[in-house]
Amino acid sequence: MTHDTTRQRLRLAMIGGGQGAFIGGVHRMAARLDDRFELVAGAFSSQAERNLATASELGVDKTRCYTNHETLLAGETARKDGADVVAIVTPNHLHFPVAMAALEAGLHVICEKPMTLTLEEAERLARTAAASQRRFMLTHNYAGYPLVQHARELVAGGGLGSIRHVQVEYVQEWLSETPADDNRQAAWRLDPARAGAAGCLGDIGVHAFQLAQFISGQRVNQVSAELSSAVPGRSLDDNVQALLRFDGGARGMLWASQTAPGFENALSIRVIGERASLQWAQETPNELWLRPLNGPSQRLTRRDDALSAEIGRGVRLPGGHPEGYIEAFANLYQALADDLADDKHSSWLPGIADGVDGMRFIAATLASSQAAGVWTSLSQKEVPNG
Amino acid sequence: MTHDTTRQRLRLAMIGGGQGAFIGGVHRMAARLDDRFELVAGAFSSQAERNLATASELGVDKTRCYTNHETLLAGETARKDGADVVAIVTPNHLHFPVAMAALEAGLHVICEKPMTLTLEEAERLARTAAASQRRFMLTHNYAGYPLVQHARELVAGGGLGSIRHVQVEYVQEWLSETPADDNRQAAWRLDPARAGAAGCLGDIGVHAFQLAQFISGQRVNQVSAELSSAVPGRSLDDNVQALLRFDGGARGMLWASQTAPGFENALSIRVIGERASLQWAQETPNELWLRPLNGPSQRLTRRDDALSAEIGRGVRLPGGHPEGYIEAFANLYQALADDLADDKHSSWLPGIADGVDGMRFIAATLASSQAAGVWTSLSQKEVPNG
Amino acid sequence: MTHDTTRQRLRLAMIGGGQGAFIGGVHRMAARLDDRFELVAGAFSSQAERNLATASELGVDKTRCYTNHETLLAGETARKDGADVVAIVTPNHLHFPVAMAALEAGLHVICEKPMTLTLEEAERLARTAAASQRRFMLTHNYAGYPLVQHARELVAGGGLGSIRHVQVEYVQEWLSETPADDNRQAAWRLDPARAGAAGCLGDIGVHAFQLAQFISGQRVNQVSAELSSAVPGRSLDDNVQALLRFDGGARGMLWASQTAPGFENALSIRVIGERASLQWAQETPNELWLRPLNGPSQRLTRRDDALSAEIGRGVRLPGGHPEGYIEAFANLYQALADDLADDKHSSWLPGIADGVDGMRFIAATLASSQAAGVWTSLSQKEVPNG
Amino acid sequence: MTHDTTRQRLRLAMIGGGQGAFIGGVHRMAARLDDRFELVAGAFSSQAERNLATASELGVDKTRCYTNHETLLAGETARKDGADVVAIVTPNHLHFPVAMAALEAGLHVICEKPMTLTLEEAERLARTAAASQRRFMLTHNYAGYPLVQHARELVAGGGLGSIRHVQVEYVQEWLSETPADDNRQAAWRLDPARAGAAGCLGDIGVHAFQLAQFISGQRVNQVSAELSSAVPGRSLDDNVQALLRFDGGARGMLWASQTAPGFENALSIRVIGERASLQWAQETPNELWLRPLNGPSQRLTRRDDALSAEIGRGVRLPGGHPEGYIEAFANLYQALADDLADDKHSSWLPGIADGVDGMRFIAATLASSQAAGVWTSLSQKEVPNG
Repeated sequence: MTHDTTRQRLRLAMIGGGQGAFIGGVHRMAARLDDRFELVAGAFSSQAERNLATASELGVDKTRCYTNHETLLAGETARKDGADVVAIVTPNHLHFPVAMAALEAGLHVICEKPMTLTLEEAERLARTAAASQRRFMLTHNYAGYPLVQHARELVAGGGLGSIRHVQVEYVQEWLSETPADDNRQAAWRLDPARAGAAGCLGDIGVHAFQLAQFISGQRVNQVSAELSSAVPGRSLDDNVQALLRFDGGARGMLWASQTAPGFENALSIRVIGERASLQWAQETPNELWLRPLNGPSQRLTRRDDALSAEIGRGVRLPGGHPEGYIEAFANLYQALADDLADDKHSSWLPGIADGVDGMRFIAATLASSQAAGVWTSLSQKEVPNG
Repeated sequence: MTHDTTRQRLRLAMIGGGQGAFIGGVHRMAARLDDRFELVAGAFSSQAERNLATASELGVDKTRCYTNHETLLAGETARKDGADVVAIVTPNHLHFPVAMAALEAGLHVICEKPMTLTLEEAERLARTAAASQRRFMLTHNYAGYPLVQHARELVAGGGLGSIRHVQVEYVQEWLSETPADDNRQAAWRLDPARAGAAGCLGDIGVHAFQLAQFISGQRVNQVSAELSSAVPGRSLDDNVQALLRFDGGARGMLWASQTAPGFENALSIRVIGERASLQWAQETPNELWLRPLNGPSQRLTRRDDALSAEIGRGVRLPGGHPEGYIEAFANLYQALADDLADDKHSSWLPGIADGVDGMRFIAATLASSQAAGVWTSLSQKEVPNG
Repeated sequence: MTHDTTRQRLRLAMIGGGQGAFIGGVHRMAARLDDRFELVAGAFSSQAERNLATASELGVDKTRCYTNHETLLAGETARKDGADVVAIVTPNHLHFPVAMAALEAGLHVICEKPMTLTLEEAERLARTAAASQRRFMLTHNYAGYPLVQHARELVAGGGLGSIRHVQVEYVQEWLSETPADDNRQAAWRLDPARAGAAGCLGDIGVHAFQLAQFISGQRVNQVSAELSSAVPGRSLDDNVQALLRFDGGARGMLWASQTAPGFENALSIRVIGERASLQWAQETPNELWLRPLNGPSQRLTRRDDALSAEIGRGVRLPGGHPEGYIEAFANLYQALADDLADDKHSSWLPGIADGVDGMRFIAATLASSQAAGVWTSLSQKEVPNG
Repeated sequence: MTHDTTRQRLRLAMIGGGQGAFIGGVHRMAARLDDRFELVAGAFSSQAERNLATASELGVDKTRCYTNHETLLAGETARKDGADVVAIVTPNHLHFPVAMAALEAGLHVICEKPMTLTLEEAERLARTAAASQRRFMLTHNYAGYPLVQHARELVAGGGLGSIRHVQVEYVQEWLSETPADDNRQAAWRLDPARAGAAGCLGDIGVHAFQLAQFISGQRVNQVSAELSSAVPGRSLDDNVQALLRFDGGARGMLWASQTAPGFENALSIRVIGERASLQWAQETPNELWLRPLNGPSQRLTRRDDALSAEIGRGVRLPGGHPEGYIEAFANLYQALADDLADDKHSSWLPGIADGVDGMRFIAATLASSQAAGVWTSLSQKEVPNG
């Protein structure tokens, strides 16, 4: 379980994540936890001072602190000891150009969601990734929780019977009011130029969508949705309601909101099968409820012996010793490091296909909402899976 | 709090509720708890033997055990000490004719939901009730829980700010499979001739709908829905998904299912306001969660001093002494008895208007589902409120 | 499950329970719920006006409203249709004399706990009861919860292996401060003349003790305790801490307090066996946790098919429809009525032996606490079991 | 909140923590998370092969992989870039000699609990630490949870009024049966030569004790206890029951067990004050319950703005993003690094005084249990606080 593995550390560069950012720090802790990565370079901020200060704080040599992703990729590929992997933790609009450039420069890519601003960009990126021989990991981090993976395996193993219904939601309160001017997290998320056309939908709705497909093993093929905004003057949605149809026959409902007082980071899912249901909530991630028909509900925990070997690799502590968000996030980094070391592909690790599906969902949801909730098919256009 | 009140007991007759029925027994316990009613007559079953055996078991004189509602109404109205109130606990298709006849015979009516089979019947019944000078109580029993009433008062008092979103669900497992032939509860509920055109929708969806309006203080004016059936060969829906628009601007989602393994009687609701949210679940009815924006969630309980006088009448025990389903049900009976004794009208007590609204919801939901989820307005046709 | 049973109703008299009392009203609701008792007589209060007003409110004929228990017993035994059963719901000091007189007068007795003021009284009462051919029921009402009974059967069935440890507590807040002068509930409980030498110990500690023995199937034979009082000027204990040794080898701990802010009526128990543990809490009485060694915990509910026939009689509603304190209390009344009708003895129904054991525990705990916590044996003196 | 701090990393050596050990890996993850330590040397195992393999796996240069603590201290103090701090993660019997030697060699010490085998050793170590000008940190890691620290501050701030009662427990199942021969964790813990005279008491009971003092702000001065063993053939206790008296007048109860099926790592505490109570459980560490007298209980979470600046340093993520055991453990390492960098002393960081108190508790509890539970005073002998 607890395992400090062999010492070949991957060299990591980071785009974004300057002081005051949120998710960049999470990526760094995740990369550090198992000691499989070394942060060697970065273009942390477009503001020069902030960029250098971040590098200094992180112990990144200032010669490898770059002004933007182009110079970083040029500089690092010119070095013998250049970065192996680049983590893209910028606002949404930069995901696509940076990822394209990084793949073309021959680096593996770790990218935040939503993968791109548009479905077309996502499809282009998928083709580039497929042609690149490089790995593309999308940080749908909630898939990193061991009990989420266990839920997925329970469904795949047939224990629930065929899946009838999926109920998923991701609810927050932090945008319940117009945020203060100096709230850097909020500023770009509420700005269509940097966030894209999807607000709450792209920021957290897409996580809920990914989780629904991930655990249920079915893909959404139609959506009937209504986007709305609770706070006056906001140009992007902050509330998402959607009915879902899955390709395996399941129905579903998805609710995402960033304007619900009292909800901190309330992602939760219920997957209803013929013979049993599953329930998991991100705020209490160390328990998974299995609810058989006509029998007592069971509280599954992160016990070693009940989890598959693949899942067990991401369990660092015995049951009863809570693991959280950082550990789940670290499981993505750990799996990528293992995959690259062993030339394999962790079956659960989110990648380009999840990103394309996410953009299909976003596109179809926007379209349905604009068309008064008409059932709208997700694009089925084939793209290569990087 | 605990109160044994004055001794004028109302004389109660019951239509339906023979041996093997479920809800009839609940009505009788509810009527008994506060000793405000005396069961004096009944037409419990169309099967003569079962009818008499039920009467005998309940201590109803066999001369007042009638073969059907017509003879009961005729018999009781002919007596000086005839029944004051009739409780209708039959399958759905009989609610309308019995209620009409009872009102016309001059009795007060206690009626199970859904109130009628069609909206047109509901409108006719409303007109009859308004003309009758008799009370009509609809047993939307979940409104009887003190903390549900408290939630309603908190919203009405403005403490949550304007309501943005309502999330309501009512989920059960008991029809997950094709029921056994001798399951009397299931048989009529799955039979359109007795249940009406709405299956799960009419049986429990309408409870969820009523609760959403009851607490939020807003009325649903449009619905976009999908009905489906998870069990092959079933002619009525057993799963309801609906998006809601409220007249006060709130959005909502409603899920009802009778085919979700592991869910016993899981009615729950969350009402999201600008400044705080509320959460209540029927299976843990003695707590109500108040979740203020950016502050700690609070677990409200059934403490006397926090509840209004009107609510407090329905609290029989101090906090920490759990009250349940029967007590909530009894609160409807208690309120009706108090209302009749004091010639007043408990503001929360469900009646004809709730019944008409319920049928409007059922009609609009059926129509939307048949029209591929198009947003469908609930009828706004005016009817008198009995 | 839901059952309205045959109509022979027992005639009930009540001593105590005048207006403003708490537990008397509970007894009456419990007696009413299944319609097996009819309240026919009472000596509700030593204050004449309150006594009559109570009778009037309850519909008790004023000729059967007596000034005290002696006149009640004389009057009722003189009638052909006199009371069959007397419920004693007075302050503690009257339990013994009234119970003795009632048994001697040939009535069955329903008595509140603690059974008597002293162990010697308890032993005398036991002998009288044994000689009387009348039933004596002690309202250790928490034994009436179906899942408490189920826990007891699970232990008795051997599923937990031998019992190692019992952790029980009963915690309230209501005496955290010096109560107001007009608090009738508090007044007698804090007065040694009416409550006896044991305060919190006799009021709620004895419930915890009874529950521990009831579920574990073992009897406490030694106790090491410390009684204390948190509120200045109080002559009786309001906090009980005890270590327990059971005759089957289990160890245990008992905590009772009436001065713990935030605790309403928090009686809970954990029974630890070799192979599994059980956990139950009174404030959420419709779930029982079974926690097997090295496996997922299971949430047992009040499903019909999992409960024995004897327990099932006390289940009025399907799972998911919460039952509470009144229903559990009513199960004692129902069982007594069934026992008398069928000339049998419900195995779980608390009686004289529980009362004697409770007084043994109180006596030993008082002695241990006065002797600086020395391990003190509970009396083993034989008394007949009525 | 999320903060990557300046780059001066402390050089860390480790004694113990070879492959197959549990807590050594936790220390390494904790040291890594905030990037304030670099593991440079170790004597990981007395088995040469395991020792070298561990070093290799961890990237420790083999020239700094030592055969025992003496050679490590000699080797490292001889280097200019020698270790600054040594972490002692061995079985209990080695804590004392290694800590003494490390302090005398001029290194800061991070040491596992129980601090020593005997109270006399603890007192000697305290004197040595006080004379050494070096820091001694004891990994009572549960004090690292932000909400535990917040609870302590709430009590210290007077919000609860004076503390009346402390209820603490630490319950596990993992030694419910005789462990397999190859269970390295169990082997030394059940061996008095390596674990000391206290089994469960020294392994987890002392954590519960520390937490009780830490949050309540009162020190235990007397104990009445019973140790027992549930599994036949075990020479050390696996179950601890104790009544506590605190110097501020509070009473308390402590239960620790390693033989309770279904309990994974169930450390929990309730602190009862005059005006409010607190409740926290390690398995759900991101919530703290504040229960005011006569008011609704509040669920406090790890929100930035509600926590003091000192606590906030150890919060890496916003509320709703769960943090767990590793993060809490890392807070001890982070605080030590900050303290050394800034020449200050984090008020909450457990050190030599906690260790001495823990050994006083162990000594008094063993004595009380051997003397049939007599109230036994904890040693008040003065020792310097390092």
